[in-house]
Amino acid sequence: MELGIIGLGKMGFNMAERLRLAGHKVVGFDFNKDATAKLTATGNLGVNSVEELVKNLSTPRAIWIMVPAGDPVDETIAQLEPLMEKGDTIIDGGNSNYKNTQRRHDEVKAKGFNFVDCGTSGGVWGLKEGYSLMIGGDKEPVERLTPIFQALAPSATEGWGHVGPSGAGHFVKMVHNGIEYGMMQAFAEGFSIMQAKEPLNLDLTQIAHIWQKGSVVRSWLLDLTAGALDKNPTLDGLEAWVPDSGEGRWTVTEAIDLNISAPVITESLIRRLRSREENNFTDRMISIMRGAFGGHDVKKS
Amino acid sequence: MELGIIGLGKMGFNMAERLRLAGHKVVGFDFNKDATAKLTATGNLGVNSVEELVKNLSTPRAIWIMVPAGDPVDETIAQLEPLMEKGDTIIDGGNSNYKNTQRRHDEVKAKGFNFVDCGTSGGVWGLKEGYSLMIGGDKEPVERLTPIFQALAPSATEGWGHVGPSGAGHFVKMVHNGIEYGMMQAFAEGFSIMQAKEPLNLDLTQIAHIWQKGSVVRSWLLDLTAGALDKNPTLDGLEAWVPDSGEGRWTVTEAIDLNISAPVITESLIRRLRSREENNFTDRMISIMRGAFGGHDVKKS
Amino acid sequence: MELGIIGLGKMGFNMAERLRLAGHKVVGFDFNKDATAKLTATGNLGVNSVEELVKNLSTPRAIWIMVPAGDPVDETIAQLEPLMEKGDTIIDGGNSNYKNTQRRHDEVKAKGFNFVDCGTSGGVWGLKEGYSLMIGGDKEPVERLTPIFQALAPSATEGWGHVGPSGAGHFVKMVHNGIEYGMMQAFAEGFSIMQAKEPLNLDLTQIAHIWQKGSVVRSWLLDLTAGALDKNPTLDGLEAWVPDSGEGRWTVTEAIDLNISAPVITESLIRRLRSREENNFTDRMISIMRGAFGGHDVKKS
Amino acid sequence: MELGIIGLGKMGFNMAERLRLAGHKVVGFDFNKDATAKLTATGNLGVNSVEELVKNLSTPRAIWIMVPAGDPVDETIAQLEPLMEKGDTIIDGGNSNYKNTQRRHDEVKAKGFNFVDCGTSGGVWGLKEGYSLMIGGDKEPVERLTPIFQALAPSATEGWGHVGPSGAGHFVKMVHNGIEYGMMQAFAEGFSIMQAKEPLNLDLTQIAHIWQKGSVVRSWLLDLTAGALDKNPTLDGLEAWVPDSGEGRWTVTEAIDLNISAPVITESLIRRLRSREENNFTDRMISIMRGAFGGHDVKKS
Repeated sequence: MELGIIGLGKMGFNMAERLRLAGHKVVGFDFNKDATAKLTATGNLGVNSVEELVKNLSTPRAIWIMVPAGDPVDETIAQLEPLMEKGDTIIDGGNSNYKNTQRRHDEVKAKGFNFVDCGTSGGVWGLKEGYSLMIGGDKEPVERLTPIFQALAPSATEGWGHVGPSGAGHFVKMVHNGIEYGMMQAFAEGFSIMQAKEPLNLDLTQIAHIWQKGSVVRSWLLDLTAGALDKNPTLDGLEAWVPDSGEGRWTVTEAIDLNISAPVITESLIRRLRSREENNFTDRMISIMRGAFGGHDVKKS
Repeated sequence: MELGIIGLGKMGFNMAERLRLAGHKVVGFDFNKDATAKLTATGNLGVNSVEELVKNLSTPRAIWIMVPAGDPVDETIAQLEPLMEKGDTIIDGGNSNYKNTQRRHDEVKAKGFNFVDCGTSGGVWGLKEGYSLMIGGDKEPVERLTPIFQALAPSATEGWGHVGPSGAGHFVKMVHNGIEYGMMQAFAEGFSIMQAKEPLNLDLTQIAHIWQKGSVVRSWLLDLTAGALDKNPTLDGLEAWVPDSGEGRWTVTEAIDLNISAPVITESLIRRLRSREENNFTDRMISIMRGAFGGHDVKKS
Repeated sequence: MELGIIGLGKMGFNMAERLRLAGHKVVGFDFNKDATAKLTATGNLGVNSVEELVKNLSTPRAIWIMVPAGDPVDETIAQLEPLMEKGDTIIDGGNSNYKNTQRRHDEVKAKGFNFVDCGTSGGVWGLKEGYSLMIGGDKEPVERLTPIFQALAPSATEGWGHVGPSGAGHFVKMVHNGIEYGMMQAFAEGFSIMQAKEPLNLDLTQIAHIWQKGSVVRSWLLDLTAGALDKNPTLDGLEAWVPDSGEGRWTVTEAIDLNISAPVITESLIRRLRSREENNFTDRMISIMRGAFGGHDVKKS
Repeated sequence: MELGIIGLGKMGFNMAERLRLAGHKVVGFDFNKDATAKLTATGNLGVNSVEELVKNLSTPRAIWIMVPAGDPVDETIAQLEPLMEKGDTIIDGGNSNYKNTQRRHDEVKAKGFNFVDCGTSGGVWGLKEGYSLMIGGDKEPVERLTPIFQALAPSATEGWGHVGPSGAGHFVKMVHNGIEYGMMQAFAEGFSIMQAKEPLNLDLTQIAHIWQKGSVVRSWLLDLTAGALDKNPTLDGLEAWVPDSGEGRWTVTEAIDLNISAPVITESLIRRLRSREENNFTDRMISIMRGAFGGHDVKKS
């Protein structure tokens, strides 16, 4: 089957490669000419414009957008629409907010095209192990694209599914990432407690490996953690500074909108915010209060 | 190798069976005569008293205690000591608080015996998949017992390890369970958000299965969750009531003692406490305050 | 000075009365004819339509809107605009989201009118003790309205202020309510811990009164709590069910948007959400997981 | 009435002064000779040993201990016991853990003396405004000491009370401090959100003062905060580093022991722990995980 891919970054490029290995034909575009050249070199077809990409696909076309969430998605859709024909399908495989997805679906559909959302998990390991795909949108285009999903997924019958109407794919991916935040924070706290118990002199790398088999916390995240600790057991050079990519905070505000209490996912986000607050204002406010009522010594910076 | 096991509950019995299948000889005791009879019936030896158990093991003996944490452990040790000989080893495989373990180790050692702690994870699946074993204690008895650990573990080289001096095994197991609390809460919150998003009509069972392959949250816990949802997709008959077994709260207080901030593990425990508070007093206090300052309608029960 | 008030509920009516007692003239409208009649009876003027209200005020008019946040504010503005003259001022004294306020300010101003936002705190006690007023908007109308603010506030120089441009008043009121959530939850938790310590048989009402003088936690909220406990020391008839009015959740999402970690205000909101979740789905998900890995007894409902 | 005071620090000295102003006679001891000299200079009697202190009091004696919680209390009691006579009373006015208080009460009582616990709040402001006193212990000595409590308290009938048996006073004070942690954190978060909202350019000092009158959050803590911001509106020289004195963490662990969920008090403590974690290990663990699964750039320190 043919697939256009716009956006050949870490994720997009590897997906093209996985599709090629499964016998599909990918036409890819990226502003980065090295990426398109490399795509051609690996046996797919890299092109230098969206026009060229559209031209090189037979109808009904399927074009996968793998660009940063937000304006780039809208801009790409705007570029595509004049070039497309009725029945063509755009798939947004990025981390878009599901509300934008639902809006885009309606706008694109009004013009006679299909719009499918696909939450894509798997990171840099997806090429080898397959991507987990959470798909939302209308039945017809999703069914038509089944061979693509089967090739990208870990297997034809596993790790992917059509989870609901437009937006459902990105909604489920958003929640997936919220859970991921919570799991990461839980593991990180546990390792932090262990490293602080100095008299026991625990070897975190050893423990991570032990837990990989037979324990209740065994997980892919733990496998990766064990591997990372093998290379850097003392966390040298890592900064205590954690970004958040949008999906965590969307999960938190969505939970509030739905009147669902989600303290652990929320706290995981809050701790990421905290990691980036320098000379924490809240703590300094508490310091000034303590000084005011107790005459407590205020530690000067 | 020979091993005595005291306590043939869900865990102890299955461990005996796994050892037998690996070619070891188990002598087991439990107050429950059905359990000891069943042990004999399966090819190990069930006995009717601690005395008999000790008598049936050749020296240096290794006796694994698998009884509820707390007084039962001390009582079992007290029963064993007069019957044991120098060089014999007691292994506490239960969920003991590591501080009690360190005290017991010192007391037992003063009498010439060995005391090893083994945090044991794996639940009802351990018989088939092996147990994750986190072992603390002196080098000599741990090394001597290696064949036992290798047989109980998922494999001879995986899922087990000697993590440190006395108490280290139970300490690491305690933290393991703290992490487990956090992971469970993170998953549960995510599924809760998804079920509340009614317009998308998401199928939680389908999503759990999708995530099993390729996703970042793939884990044994998710595998089990998917299996459980297969059988009961609507959580029928389950009560919103969650016990906690001790290790979660020990992790939380240990973190505080170590001056380590662990909000997610802590909040996971707090939510379990909350699940068991009926007619929540805190919420009613807030109700009375709202009524007092705002004349807000107080919802009567 | 003259002031029109639209919305004569608990807050609006009492504000009219406080203004009257300070020598101002209030013209008030409400859909509830009992309220307008009562307003006239108390010496102000109650009218039966927005038109009548506008007609009874001399220019430049000042019209205070005290209606539920959201659409009612927009609808009231839409009704007023055709009747107003350049230089007239609308004051939104309700709990509007500051983003809506900023939008309304710009829209209203484009038509030649002024729009002032006034966060108003004080609840049912405001009539007697004065209202805390956090005012946002352009300098000119705020200065012109100073006599009104001085009369509503606890005193001419206390408890009110022009805190910034349009939206600032509602922003500060929003944060005020967020803090209020945190304080209430802190007190409620403390009282909850004390009532649970059964062997000490503590008298919460006595303790609330002790703390009113000399303690670090003395506060108006505590005064009200002590008074409420006098009347209902056992929280009889109160339900463990706490609504939230919007400002708490806005504070939480605003904090996230600003990348500020605010765990306590956030958790206070989350606990209110939790209080309204019946047959908690999250807890039942944890139950099903515990059953799956540990064979733990699942408490049936 | 006569009172011995051991420990003439910030709290003890001011209490002696407040008692003197109310017509009582204080005999005070401290290792710091400046403090005892100053006590004599202000009209009370400073002495140079515990022996001298006991000798200068007529029976039945009342001796108030105002020393750091922990061993110093036990050491002071041990010094006093050989010098005391049946019917004498020790009052522990410090921040002792209530469990130690109950133990001490029983030990002291077995020797024929009384032991009263008095949780004391008010900080450096107590001299002028009176102390909030939460008293635990046997009825007889508490009643006998009533004039002392009435003089220390804000008034004879306010701000103090006998709240229960031995330990109750320190228990209630412990919870008081837990609530105080929550209130401080709630205020600090609110101010932090406001300072981060740069386009509004809010003046935190002005807002603190506005809220002092008429608002729901008005409180002594806010009064102090407003005063402190007057002197240092930009928090210059304050470090984002907050100690905790014991009572907060005791409240948290007590809540857990009582199976009471207290997320806000707990989180307030956790944030203090967090403020003191340098090069946060948990955040660095999350960084290493993100790098492992996503190839996310790891920010190097």
